[in-house]
Amino acid sequence: MREYLIPVCTRHDSLKTGFELGSEKLVIIGQERLKMEAKANGPSVNAGRVMDGPTNPMVTPLLTDLYQFTMAYAYWKAGKHNDRAVFDLYFRKNPFGGEFTVFAGLEECIKLIANFKLTEEEISFICETLPGSCEEGFVKYLRNIDCSDVEVYAISEGTVVFPKVPLLRVEGPVAVVQLLETPVLNLVNFASLVATNAARHRLVAGKSKMLLEFGLRRAQGPDGAISASKYCYIGGFDATSNVAAGRLFGIPLRGTHSHAFVSSFMSPDEILERSLHRSDGSSTCEDFVSLVQSWLSKIQWSKALGNSVGETNQSELAAFTSYALAFPNNFLALVDTYDVMRSGVPNFCAVALALNDLGYKSVGIRLDSGDLAYLSGEARKIFQIIEKEFGLPGFGKTSITASNDLNEETLDALNKQGHEVDCYGIGTYLVTCYAQAALGCVFKLVEINNQPRIKLSEDVSKVSIPCKKRCYRLYGREGYSLVDIMTGENEPCPKVGERILCRHPFNESKRAYVVPQRVEELLKCYWPGKSGKVREELPALKDIRDHCIKQLEQMRPDHIRRLNPTPYKVSVSAKLYDFIHFLWLNEAPVGELQ
Amino acid sequence: MREYLIPVCTRHDSLKTGFELGSEKLVIIGQERLKMEAKANGPSVNAGRVMDGPTNPMVTPLLTDLYQFTMAYAYWKAGKHNDRAVFDLYFRKNPFGGEFTVFAGLEECIKLIANFKLTEEEISFICETLPGSCEEGFVKYLRNIDCSDVEVYAISEGTVVFPKVPLLRVEGPVAVVQLLETPVLNLVNFASLVATNAARHRLVAGKSKMLLEFGLRRAQGPDGAISASKYCYIGGFDATSNVAAGRLFGIPLRGTHSHAFVSSFMSPDEILERSLHRSDGSSTCEDFVSLVQSWLSKIQWSKALGNSVGETNQSELAAFTSYALAFPNNFLALVDTYDVMRSGVPNFCAVALALNDLGYKSVGIRLDSGDLAYLSGEARKIFQIIEKEFGLPGFGKTSITASNDLNEETLDALNKQGHEVDCYGIGTYLVTCYAQAALGCVFKLVEINNQPRIKLSEDVSKVSIPCKKRCYRLYGREGYSLVDIMTGENEPCPKVGERILCRHPFNESKRAYVVPQRVEELLKCYWPGKSGKVREELPALKDIRDHCIKQLEQMRPDHIRRLNPTPYKVSVSAKLYDFIHFLWLNEAPVGELQ
Repeated sequence: MREYLIPVCTRHDSLKTGFELGSEKLVIIGQERLKMEAKANGPSVNAGRVMDGPTNPMVTPLLTDLYQFTMAYAYWKAGKHNDRAVFDLYFRKNPFGGEFTVFAGLEECIKLIANFKLTEEEISFICETLPGSCEEGFVKYLRNIDCSDVEVYAISEGTVVFPKVPLLRVEGPVAVVQLLETPVLNLVNFASLVATNAARHRLVAGKSKMLLEFGLRRAQGPDGAISASKYCYIGGFDATSNVAAGRLFGIPLRGTHSHAFVSSFMSPDEILERSLHRSDGSSTCEDFVSLVQSWLSKIQWSKALGNSVGETNQSELAAFTSYALAFPNNFLALVDTYDVMRSGVPNFCAVALALNDLGYKSVGIRLDSGDLAYLSGEARKIFQIIEKEFGLPGFGKTSITASNDLNEETLDALNKQGHEVDCYGIGTYLVTCYAQAALGCVFKLVEINNQPRIKLSEDVSKVSIPCKKRCYRLYGREGYSLVDIMTGENEPCPKVGERILCRHPFNESKRAYVVPQRVEELLKCYWPGKSGKVREELPALKDIRDHCIKQLEQMRPDHIRRLNPTPYKVSVSAKLYDFIHFLWLNEAPVGELQ
Repeated sequence: MREYLIPVCTRHDSLKTGFELGSEKLVIIGQERLKMEAKANGPSVNAGRVMDGPTNPMVTPLLTDLYQFTMAYAYWKAGKHNDRAVFDLYFRKNPFGGEFTVFAGLEECIKLIANFKLTEEEISFICETLPGSCEEGFVKYLRNIDCSDVEVYAISEGTVVFPKVPLLRVEGPVAVVQLLETPVLNLVNFASLVATNAARHRLVAGKSKMLLEFGLRRAQGPDGAISASKYCYIGGFDATSNVAAGRLFGIPLRGTHSHAFVSSFMSPDEILERSLHRSDGSSTCEDFVSLVQSWLSKIQWSKALGNSVGETNQSELAAFTSYALAFPNNFLALVDTYDVMRSGVPNFCAVALALNDLGYKSVGIRLDSGDLAYLSGEARKIFQIIEKEFGLPGFGKTSITASNDLNEETLDALNKQGHEVDCYGIGTYLVTCYAQAALGCVFKLVEINNQPRIKLSEDVSKVSIPCKKRCYRLYGREGYSLVDIMTGENEPCPKVGERILCRHPFNESKRAYVVPQRVEELLKCYWPGKSGKVREELPALKDIRDHCIKQLEQMRPDHIRRLNPTPYKVSVSAKLYDFIHFLWLNEAPVGELQ
């Protein structure tokens, strides 16, 4: 009897929820098939266990390396395909020169695993592709492959994680687990990288700033962008410009207008529909354009502003006025198309003052070029003068957004110089992880048929930690986490208040006794296979984000600081240490010098 | 009457061709709707004009920045939404410190444009998302938006291109063209970046080497990987490991086995099914395992090999033997799990010699760590000795594949050291474009309602070249391209044998007379809108690849060399030069020093 498995149809279902393709018939068929399958499979497939497929319908069992299928064939030929294997997914080095990583991508992995089933067409393609001819028995085998006998233990998505500790432990028939290797690595690698990048940007920007992800146009392809929007939100961003991501994941959306909008106007004379209702609907201003012009004159002649404002750009004024007429409650203007201080800011203020007359509060300005520290400061001064001069309480706090090729370094530089920016729009450097475009997660065999396996390498950092393991995070008196420790599967769990020896896995002199005040088991069961364990529910995106933010607050500040952070300690139990080194000596050939 | 437009249904159709979701009903519905739509729309929608949607079903009109929709609303409110706008898509700087770029992504753009239509659900989402309430008239407007009145002129995909020259010129109603801005940039930016990266790797590796793209697991998400596979193939790679990409695009697939496969075996005793037919089917070897063992002994005792081979790893030997039993015609072994020269290569040779007895020719070995120059040389020596010693003609040329974190620099270093590698498997650095993770294509308004527009900037390299333009590539006597030139839309075309003045767009002293031996117009009509022009057909992927390879051959070698390449000249006509500078002075405010 199959458990937890909903076949092919859920892929349609994911399309339905993901994209609402607009064909009711299509949707009905998806649901009908679901019901039919549920019936056919009996009560074991119940509604509570059904899971949508991955967000991107391109994530199918074929999204894998060909060698996973050639190996599956060779395992099958050798009668080894059902050997019980345990693989760990982990990385060896934190990205961006830092000492922490945010784990992300788990939900998509579980959705893939829950729906892992080859279609007949996919099977035909594989058999045509494998070198030589495929035996019929293998075709039958492929037809029956699913993840009903696979178990997945993972750290919660959004958790701060460290090198060598398994993020996922995947157990099951070796051929099936190998097929999962590539897509699972693909789904975790970029997700964790970009979530970490976002978290780093949040740490530099500070909690009080609004962070917007603006990377869609420069991302590595369509779902390089959509994934980035999702995982930047997890890492602590507040909103995205990417409408598709907003719709798929419910991430708040932000956006106003571009330079092209500004330069598409010639002059306010173009504006034909000039009337605007008051905010409370009580009356109508028949000529908002003239109201704006009159405020612009007042600004130009204002002594408080030092008569410094000359003629502003009329095409820009027309664009701002038009935008305000369309969105009087959400007026935010891009002020750097011509000249920020001589044109953009005065034009914005004129429109904002006119809107204020009609009871609308403007949102602010966006700067997309130039010296952001200086310009934001100058704009703030103008806002403060106007607040006083024209009696607009709060106008001095008008929001200033900055968005010109920002990254960790430029945010840090802005902090050092002092600035008046309230909100950052960050694109290219964030979503492409320009500073380090890949995270090197690996997926290593640690046990087969209950036999521990070790992968040796001349580079110690590449030696794998064998055995099916348990992983714990130990917390100290101040609430910070002190150390992660891996133990053998059957060792007793570390206990609160009890001293435990934590050893560096490869460096014999590095060790410490720890008396934990709190012990957290890191790996939880997200896909129980046939183990009968309770399946951990996948949390909502917002909850993952909250978890991530809380996790970062629990880190000792020196582990997450930007420059020269302290490495976090990752250790093994004394027993596991001994076993690693026993196995190592056992497997490594003794060199011979001649 | 609508032209060239196939509404929503083609999105399903793309799903069908792209993924074969396995539900016949679904497919039929897609086709039925297509037919129904075709009927409803009359003969203007004919089969020849139907086009599939983008490869990734996530590419919809919502894959855009929110500000494109807020602007659309503001344009609509101002009655400007149908103003006729011309936008250029171009980049400002070649990537990777080079002086050329390979243009890619066009097909996906045209597929998006051909199917650009908002669904009712998408429209509802937009209206809920826009700040404030959406007027009913705008909803109606959104419902009717398509690209039937948009014209797209583009350089052929796979062409070598240079900064400032428009890769695409998109003309149409300003609100619609702005909606296209973000997705089109997204589809071109990474595609061109990774195609260029692949071409650069090909140039360093040389024509004779086999290049395999192995990046799926480290790519930026699922279609970061699938796009990379597609565009690396265009840029000159031979094959990919990515099964999904192989299936979607017909790219050749490659793959054998991993370290986990090797370490999942314990010893040859495990192998139960030991028989192998001769290649010609004439007889059967009942114990292939023993045959391998006997060859291993001969190798170990061979004087020609200097008695240097001791005991090899038996788990590795078991894995190789099993793999050969599964794929006797395609035996390729990963030889670095334990020790390349002491275990992997001798084990490979034993299996290859046994296969040879049965009439099978082995493919080769793969090295995934260590000193690739040295190890490939040592392995080659062994192969050559075995060719002589055991009389296997051609065995000395057994293929050697290398695949350990390779990039342009390491390929270059291997060339300098000398090596015996025949084939490279390249992953992370290739597909994530690690050396430069983003290309900065922009999309700038150059004309609206026949009025040229210029975008100014204090940074001259950021000033846009105004006007609807034509672009030509001029070729010299030796067949190499000499210069690209942009002219106004209505200027006469440069003529073969006639002298023309080519000016640097911004540097008045840089100019040259050119007498072209061949003139190529770069921008072709890929989407005619209502212009009545003939639509350029989208070529097959293989043809794009061939075009790219031919293009690189036509480049003067100094433009494409790795170190200190010569910049290729991009120029404007004398008339366009004068106009740019007239407009510039006209728009830029005169500074005032106090």
